[in-house]
Amino acid sequence: MLEGCIKQVRAVHPLIHNITNYVTVNDVANVILACGASPIMADDAREVEEITTICQGLNINIGTLNARTIEAMRLAGRKAAALGHALLLDPVGAGASQLRTRTASRLLDEIHFDVIRGNVSELKALAGQTGRTQGVDAAAADIVSDQNLPEMVSFAKNYARETQSIIAITGAIDLVADEKQCYVIRNGRPEMAQITGTGCQLSGMMCAFLAANLANPLAACACATITMGLAGEIAYQHLAPYEGNSSYRNRIIDAIAKMDAETIKQGANYEII
Amino acid sequence: MLEGCIKQVRAVHPLIHNITNYVTVNDVANVILACGASPIMADDAREVEEITTICQGLNINIGTLNARTIEAMRLAGRKAAALGHALLLDPVGAGASQLRTRTASRLLDEIHFDVIRGNVSELKALAGQTGRTQGVDAAAADIVSDQNLPEMVSFAKNYARETQSIIAITGAIDLVADEKQCYVIRNGRPEMAQITGTGCQLSGMMCAFLAANLANPLAACACATITMGLAGEIAYQHLAPYEGNSSYRNRIIDAIAKMDAETIKQGANYEII
Amino acid sequence: MLEGCIKQVRAVHPLIHNITNYVTVNDVANVILACGASPIMADDAREVEEITTICQGLNINIGTLNARTIEAMRLAGRKAAALGHALLLDPVGAGASQLRTRTASRLLDEIHFDVIRGNVSELKALAGQTGRTQGVDAAAADIVSDQNLPEMVSFAKNYARETQSIIAITGAIDLVADEKQCYVIRNGRPEMAQITGTGCQLSGMMCAFLAANLANPLAACACATITMGLAGEIAYQHLAPYEGNSSYRNRIIDAIAKMDAETIKQGANYEII
Repeated sequence: MLEGCIKQVRAVHPLIHNITNYVTVNDVANVILACGASPIMADDAREVEEITTICQGLNINIGTLNARTIEAMRLAGRKAAALGHALLLDPVGAGASQLRTRTASRLLDEIHFDVIRGNVSELKALAGQTGRTQGVDAAAADIVSDQNLPEMVSFAKNYARETQSIIAITGAIDLVADEKQCYVIRNGRPEMAQITGTGCQLSGMMCAFLAANLANPLAACACATITMGLAGEIAYQHLAPYEGNSSYRNRIIDAIAKMDAETIKQGANYEII
Repeated sequence: MLEGCIKQVRAVHPLIHNITNYVTVNDVANVILACGASPIMADDAREVEEITTICQGLNINIGTLNARTIEAMRLAGRKAAALGHALLLDPVGAGASQLRTRTASRLLDEIHFDVIRGNVSELKALAGQTGRTQGVDAAAADIVSDQNLPEMVSFAKNYARETQSIIAITGAIDLVADEKQCYVIRNGRPEMAQITGTGCQLSGMMCAFLAANLANPLAACACATITMGLAGEIAYQHLAPYEGNSSYRNRIIDAIAKMDAETIKQGANYEII
Repeated sequence: MLEGCIKQVRAVHPLIHNITNYVTVNDVANVILACGASPIMADDAREVEEITTICQGLNINIGTLNARTIEAMRLAGRKAAALGHALLLDPVGAGASQLRTRTASRLLDEIHFDVIRGNVSELKALAGQTGRTQGVDAAAADIVSDQNLPEMVSFAKNYARETQSIIAITGAIDLVADEKQCYVIRNGRPEMAQITGTGCQLSGMMCAFLAANLANPLAACACATITMGLAGEIAYQHLAPYEGNSSYRNRIIDAIAKMDAETIKQGANYEII
């Protein structure tokens, strides 16, 4: 059933408005196309409400935020929320600077996001716990592992209850939770951490999955997460011995373009807690 | 004869100033290098006139416009026009927001562009017809097809007459027209639509072809369009079964780097109406 | 000994703050990851001091500078200098506009950079000599060659003495000099000039090498330069006949990801003058 979510993306072909960082924006656009949706990027305050109106989802990523784009995020977010669009926040680097933590918190105060997706340190920082964010990567001490899994699942569910959002904490083990259920997903490969922007890419794709599956939001977010992890596994098989992180990046996006429901059904590695 | 235009690009090696969006800018730079020219990106109002002065062409793309870059576009555009440089406008998303439509229209009012290149919905929006732009893609109802070809060729020629610019409408069928002649080009592959920025890339390359062939502007623009389409065909042949849009993007730029006049002569698929 | 510098990068795993242009930023991030460090990009004045504080190095690249980011460069630079972090300036396009020349000069006046890395025309422009910068490429008349080598080595050492910085002039022949010694490096391939941003990539990587080898700054900068050149040589061997500059870009980053001290020891081609 979960695997059907990707069929919906390709049938509905949602248009996703992205206000995102300039580091990984090209990959985000290509991943959104790869999964069957369409991207548009626009971050000027004078047009974001109009642009987001013609879309079905809004992906806000604070990776290279500035005063101008923060204002655009707020305007677009309020409009998308009012229209009932799929709304995702990727709080890149929350905990690494006050500007980022405050901007993400303020966006969360003003706008209801369907999903908040980040690494564990970013999510902890937002939840008011001691996030140990190191730049844009999660701190080692925060990483979700088999040892701290029960505690982390509780954290995700509790924060989902508090925010009434789906919480997606991605890393070696991915958690995708609402207040009642948590998908614990073990797809993916460690080499994915050597590519810039796999998190940003997942956020863009998750927003597309959500926009095309509004009746099944948790399954949609879990399916997007599994799709990214599986793509990392498939892509790895096609790497020549001399290929490194740049080719791996391309092959992951390729694998998303070739992904189908049957592959997800066979390859998905998760439990629901 | 048309195919000789690519030789000129490699002989003249024009320097192209780009004020373009941050989504596809890296691919635009690599495509300009691939075809034999050199790119420079600069968008601060305090330097764009000086930068454009040392160039031979200016490519303005409104894909992620904002107040700061719009001002830079106007200053650079006026200077490049005064110097007789090759001047191209890519009105990305015209029709999708008033800011974009107005900005493109105002640039066209103030500055004479040698070429306007966009998808059919963007061009219709600028021409004051009902553009049905959906984000940055053309609306299905607008697409150039064998059915509406005569009407679309007339539209292109008429809009060329009105603006005294070459009009390049690209999609499954490409039209490159001045007021008297229209190249109808059938190179390319549908999979190119699954890559972000093939339009932006073509605009950058077309500006380079124009800058190196100022005596044959229509042939130069047609040759650039054929080069992009043929590169899409050649690149497709080199795709492994597991490769998708990200590898395809790289292979298209590769094919442009390897393109020569003989390949264009053999592979060009067009008629002049 | 020099080759040990790459081991240090992978052991120390420094976090590098980049204020850089939006053209090549994604490649810079992936190269920094490939060599074993981590990148973070942040350019808002309200957060750059905080962000740079948690890093070990700061890479300032003026490739698409504007008023907002220039202010961020100054704030971050002063903070990083006060903290003793590795500090590198890449004066992209100095000599091509007064804004760029003045911005780079002012940054050099206010902040001590450990390294200044650019092409020969950019460095000459900053040193007050007649830089013949053509856009972002070095002018033909400036290129370091066997004919003008003694004179260029003197230039590099003299400018190193004047600035008390390491001077890295990269091109067909690379010079990496302090006031006493100059590495003359002959790794690399001419095809690397057909890729946008190999210079920017080297600057990011050099900052990482420096941050991880503060006790051996000149060897660190030389090792980063050799790593880039060797990666260009290795990547070239893996290019299929139909592959051009886009695939070459990916394969160079791949080769950096696979680079080790033994490969550097075997492949390094340099003399110290």
